Amino acid sequence: MRVSIYRKAHFNAAHRLHNDNWSDEKNAQVFGKCNNANYHGHNYDLEVKLSGEINQETGYLYDLHDLAVLIKEQIEDRFDHKNLNLDVAEFKDRMPSTENLAEVIWSILRKHLDDKYDISVRLWETPRNSAEYPG
Amino acid sequence: MRVSIYRKAHFNAAHRLHNDNWSDEKNAQVFGKCNNANYHGHNYDLEVKLSGEINQETGYLYDLHDLAVLIKEQIEDRFDHKNLNLDVAEFKDRMPSTENLAEVIWSILRKHLDDKYDISVRLWETPRNSAEYPG
Amino acid sequence: MRVSIYRKAHFNAAHRLHNDNWSDEKNAQVFGKCNNANYHGHNYDLEVKLSGEINQETGYLYDLHDLAVLIKEQIEDRFDHKNLNLDVAEFKDRMPSTENLAEVIWSILRKHLDDKYDISVRLWETPRNSAEYPG
Amino acid sequence: MRVSIYRKAHFNAAHRLHNDNWSDEKNAQVFGKCNNANYHGHNYDLEVKLSGEINQETGYLYDLHDLAVLIKEQIEDRFDHKNLNLDVAEFKDRMPSTENLAEVIWSILRKHLDDKYDISVRLWETPRNSAEYPG
Amino acid sequence: MRVSIYRKAHFNAAHRLHNDNWSDEKNAQVFGKCNNANYHGHNYDLEVKLSGEINQETGYLYDLHDLAVLIKEQIEDRFDHKNLNLDVAEFKDRMPSTENLAEVIWSILRKHLDDKYDISVRLWETPRNSAEYPG
Amino acid sequence: MRVSIYRKAHFNAAHRLHNDNWSDEKNAQVFGKCNNANYHGHNYDLEVKLSGEINQETGYLYDLHDLAVLIKEQIEDRFDHKNLNLDVAEFKDRMPSTENLAEVIWSILRKHLDDKYDISVRLWETPRNSAEYPG
Repeated sequence: MRVSIYRKAHFNAAHRLHNDNWSDEKNAQVFGKCNNANYHGHNYDLEVKLSGEINQETGYLYDLHDLAVLIKEQIEDRFDHKNLNLDVAEFKDRMPSTENLAEVIWSILRKHLDDKYDISVRLWETPRNSAEYPG
Repeated sequence: MRVSIYRKAHFNAAHRLHNDNWSDEKNAQVFGKCNNANYHGHNYDLEVKLSGEINQETGYLYDLHDLAVLIKEQIEDRFDHKNLNLDVAEFKDRMPSTENLAEVIWSILRKHLDDKYDISVRLWETPRNSAEYPG
Repeated sequence: MRVSIYRKAHFNAAHRLHNDNWSDEKNAQVFGKCNNANYHGHNYDLEVKLSGEINQETGYLYDLHDLAVLIKEQIEDRFDHKNLNLDVAEFKDRMPSTENLAEVIWSILRKHLDDKYDISVRLWETPRNSAEYPG
Repeated sequence: MRVSIYRKAHFNAAHRLHNDNWSDEKNAQVFGKCNNANYHGHNYDLEVKLSGEINQETGYLYDLHDLAVLIKEQIEDRFDHKNLNLDVAEFKDRMPSTENLAEVIWSILRKHLDDKYDISVRLWETPRNSAEYPG
Repeated sequence: MRVSIYRKAHFNAAHRLHNDNWSDEKNAQVFGKCNNANYHGHNYDLEVKLSGEINQETGYLYDLHDLAVLIKEQIEDRFDHKNLNLDVAEFKDRMPSTENLAEVIWSILRKHLDDKYDISVRLWETPRNSAEYPG
Repeated sequence: MRVSIYRKAHFNAAHRLHNDNWSDEKNAQVFGKCNNANYHGHNYDLEVKLSGEINQETGYLYDLHDLAVLIKEQIEDRFDHKNLNLDVAEFKDRMPSTENLAEVIWSILRKHLDDKYDISVRLWETPRNSAEYPG
């Protein structure tokens, strides 16, 4: 009996979209307001999905409290109240877009979860804009 | 032309997670606050998804009003303002976890819907925790 | 690295469900309140999903600002504050149901997006009722 | 011990803003898209607030189930799936704006509730636009 | 310069409405499904409002992080995953209605906050039903 | 007939809480994660309330479309995708807290609205934290 569970979490961060290989003009043209040299920021909403089999001794696919702690320690503590460009190693040479941030979060969580679980990550940068990385 | 429709519904209930085959210590350790002998409760949010072909005479895959009535009669009337452990036959010998409750709801609805429809059930125990049973 | 992005948009419109090939009695019986000859209306919530590969120069699958402009020009400007039955060519001989409107929106957007992107459209008629057309 | 309770309800309707004493040009200029002769529509969200004293035999200010039934019978059944301009007597000679609709709902409910309760009505025409009539 | 701040919090609990001075028949008639002897439950949403003057050294009326910790320690830890009738002293001889629970929460917080702050408590039992105690 | 209308708007920005008159140690102790020298950010949700009399020629207290344009030009264009500390004159010597930002927004809007309207501003920094400046 294959099911999925979902857990939501939240963090907020500053970032800026800027490609160092491009001129300032091209950066301004491509990224618009998101290129502001002084950064801007977001409240990010994260939803992590795990798929697998129910353990009938607990009724759980995976203890949602344990999943909440894992997300807190590995994701929220790493990204919350941070500047993605300056404070986060993964974005030293990579654009801190919603798409890439979803993939980075997926890769971090993947290392901490047994292979018997499929995982997928959805990340909202604003209530209207989100990205999903299904692995 | 294959489409899906979704209908949301709500009910609230009390429950407790407790495995009768385990000691009180093990139950407390595994289930934490969810093991409280006096029960706790939730407002459950339910979303039922039906997939199939549009009937071009009505423009409907399935009349959403009829789906709302089906969910009301088969699910809300059965679970609303109930104690899942004490009042619901399906949980007499099964853990009333979100995962299992999603599967129980799917199985009830499956009996009342033509096989030409695929169905999937997603159930939120809290706004942050949910489970999905796609059949 | 395959990802998806999602963009939400909103418009409101009047409509009525009525099959011209049926008697008034049959229309009233099948469509109930949705058959009101003077129309009723909704705030429609739209979510467009694009799937494909990330462009690592921008970090984008597709510029969400460009997607927002596309949806504004092709969908919101066409449907917002309109009567779907009287003002929209696509519904001259087709039921303006949520299912059909999702398909119409998908078909309009499909023409404006490169084939390398898969698209899917989800449309909420009310917070409880929605339809999805995955193409 | 003075408290307030709130109850939410929902209905959807079509309407049009048009002042019969004005030229078509002035109507188009003042009301813009809201002047569409074929109507447009909304999902209205309603919140009714009652203030007064708690009855300590029940713990209630007013039975929220009874308030839900009152709103269903007096407001939802009157406005749901209707055209405010054509189907609702109160708007035969009055603009069906959110402000006026909030006042109309307040006046209907006022007749059905004991004077010992203060009442206030808030009405959302869209998630971003709302009006409040406190009496 | 007088402002207000608001902080939201969440807990879930089981309860039952039953007046020991009444017959079972009267309890069933007055409280309906809320009288279920086996309890039912809710996800409660709480919003605490503080009003007062901004401290211009911090820009704060009151540190929202400190307010979050106060609500966690005094309210969430006391009510979360509890049975209001059986586990909470305040409801040993008082109805655990939303109105009374709002007042109980207000009284607990009032003892922990300086008199220079006005406080008000709003409590949602469901997304549609809430109560407010302004003191 | 006195009513209120409300209009919601959104912008996102980076900021940092830091009092230049204090040591780094005191800043870190008082402001915690909000003191990060590299900034963090938020999606701000804004709700503007206007109170006054309905104009019965239009049914409007104030044209909500005009209010939306005013907020867009005076508030969103000024704050969206900005660094509140570095890009906004009002915060050169004032803490960019939610409380102060609500007051700054109120003061900007007050200059553009006739004195016959009372105005109030509520600002969410996160879904759980907000401030309100009623003037």
